[in-house]
Amino acid sequence: MPAIEVWFSVGSTYSYLTISRLPAIERQTGIAFDWRPFSVREIMREMDNIPFATKPAKAAYMWRDIARRAERLGLHAHLPAPYPLEGFDLANRVAIVAADEGWCADYAQATYRTWFEKGHPAGAEPNLTASLTAAGQNPARVLKKAESAETEEAYRAATDEARARGIFGAPTFAVGEELFWGDDRLEDALDWHRHGALRKG
Amino acid sequence: MPAIEVWFSVGSTYSYLTISRLPAIERQTGIAFDWRPFSVREIMREMDNIPFATKPAKAAYMWRDIARRAERLGLHAHLPAPYPLEGFDLANRVAIVAADEGWCADYAQATYRTWFEKGHPAGAEPNLTASLTAAGQNPARVLKKAESAETEEAYRAATDEARARGIFGAPTFAVGEELFWGDDRLEDALDWHRHGALRKG
Repeated sequence: MPAIEVWFSVGSTYSYLTISRLPAIERQTGIAFDWRPFSVREIMREMDNIPFATKPAKAAYMWRDIARRAERLGLHAHLPAPYPLEGFDLANRVAIVAADEGWCADYAQATYRTWFEKGHPAGAEPNLTASLTAAGQNPARVLKKAESAETEEAYRAATDEARARGIFGAPTFAVGEELFWGDDRLEDALDWHRHGALRKG
Repeated sequence: MPAIEVWFSVGSTYSYLTISRLPAIERQTGIAFDWRPFSVREIMREMDNIPFATKPAKAAYMWRDIARRAERLGLHAHLPAPYPLEGFDLANRVAIVAADEGWCADYAQATYRTWFEKGHPAGAEPNLTASLTAAGQNPARVLKKAESAETEEAYRAATDEARARGIFGAPTFAVGEELFWGDDRLEDALDWHRHGALRKG
């Protein structure tokens, strides 16, 4: 079976739910997930999409919605988490390295848990060292590679590919050309991957 | 059991899915739904929230997402439907009258089906006459009442109440003070109504 691509940015709030539940889904279904970090922030800026900063009611709702769903998943989130991330781009350049080297799921889990459960923002210390260590990596090596021109170029290319494919939010699950936006569309993506349609409920 | 309030605006695209599936859910669960029309457009304008006009990728995605989900529900939508509605406020003033008189579910279904399945925008002719007739009402009587100062005031009061309660999008399901935004949160609202929590999946 081809993989489902998971286009995500460390910094997206709802991706906490996705990243926390994907490993179990991968085990249960045998579907492979292909981690595709990109800059959703750059694409949202181009769309003039400011999701929460000027929308306090929407922001308050978002945290409550995530809290209810995190509780259902048995997660121990302390919300609201620090937001938005100052270290957004570094957090995602590290993800680019991680995806290239094959340990992106471990990094994504560790950095989101440190951010959402311990309150240390992703893309900054002490989160970076803690999550890279948890993923079995040498932080100094990875951070040097994350800050390289090669990684910057790969990050930009991934964002260009996302834009060209019509991706405008994170997480987005891609099953071939079919896009499913949001943690709450993961089940639809799984349906589509299996049946080429949404299963009738 | 207390009712679940359904805060909605005729004009919201995803409300087509909600309005189409609520009657069956009402029959299956015995839960009563309390129809609360308001102007989501006014609240979105205050938040400077322009959902789709400047965001072609997001708009294209939305129609595809609705199409997939409409197909799952067995609906026969012709998408994209005309959007946004020029007759937004009139469509919702009619809904205010309908909710007050107790035939809002019938009107909402009829006006959305005429809009999404036949391509005639809600809040304008021939949709108004067709959907009011389908709801068993005299169009001239209802339109006169919809355009009255009393209805205008009730519409404004409903929008003020929505804003005060933290509602910023449609549909929003309210279970007491707990809000659930979006057609895709209807199941969460049903869980909350029954258990005071989201059921573990």
